[in-house]
Amino acid sequence: MQIRTATIADFEKIWPIFHAVVSAGDTYTYPRDTSKEQAFQWWMQVPKRTLVAEEDGEILGTYYIKANQLGGGAHVCNCGYMVSAAARGRGIARSMCEHSQELARELGFRAMQFNFVVSSNHTAVKLWTQLGFETLARLPEAFLHPSLGYVDALVMHKKLA
Amino acid sequence: MQIRTATIADFEKIWPIFHAVVSAGDTYTYPRDTSKEQAFQWWMQVPKRTLVAEEDGEILGTYYIKANQLGGGAHVCNCGYMVSAAARGRGIARSMCEHSQELARELGFRAMQFNFVVSSNHTAVKLWTQLGFETLARLPEAFLHPSLGYVDALVMHKKLA
Repeated sequence: MQIRTATIADFEKIWPIFHAVVSAGDTYTYPRDTSKEQAFQWWMQVPKRTLVAEEDGEILGTYYIKANQLGGGAHVCNCGYMVSAAARGRGIARSMCEHSQELARELGFRAMQFNFVVSSNHTAVKLWTQLGFETLARLPEAFLHPSLGYVDALVMHKKLA
Repeated sequence: MQIRTATIADFEKIWPIFHAVVSAGDTYTYPRDTSKEQAFQWWMQVPKRTLVAEEDGEILGTYYIKANQLGGGAHVCNCGYMVSAAARGRGIARSMCEHSQELARELGFRAMQFNFVVSSNHTAVKLWTQLGFETLARLPEAFLHPSLGYVDALVMHKKLA
């Protein structure tokens, strides 16, 4: 598996992953009916860089990296990761997160912050914790989960510098 | 003093306040050289609503309210407040924050979150605490202050519902 910068053409294969994750509505705060055009803007254009995890020409996962704030807060980055349903359980998210930490250091970021990890997303919370992220806050009832109702979201953080 | 919804024409009087606050670079993460056009977009167009505190035709302060997240996170709002240098110390920020909490309830928000209160902004931290906001997290060295160097930023939160 290779993790590389995404091209515009890759979005045709990124979109089904994005759409499956977002329309499920249980992990991200993108609207569940986010259009392909809006997804392209948010996932491919707004971030500093978007990458894909590729194997035999198939895209198994994707992530973005961007500054979490502008101005005096631009030295802390934020990332988002998505894995295709078919590739779950193979450590793709772990590989992408490790890759993103290296990339973040190369880009000069001093820390990485996840602003909104849905607390019921136990796989993500466990993985980020294993990878050295600290939970700095639990945002009470910050996320309306489609089946669980209001659940907390976590602010998670890792120093890189 | 009256707090009312801002008109597009009000931006001519909002801009000097925004520019003074942002170019100082010690409280917000907007780039210090943010242009008037960009400020108009961020302060007047992106938010759900922008308001002004007005007295005798002068604008003493301004605030915005918007959803802090989309999708499953859209029931928590975020606000930003700015007071003109000439009107500081008169309780304008307090009045605007109290007003914003009422407005937030009217708009159906269940909580208000400040994502990035610079910890060296003691006036703000003290005021929000007095108004019932709880500090949920201290983001380590999240803000590069122009004279103090890296300082922490706070995530502050108040339930409204």
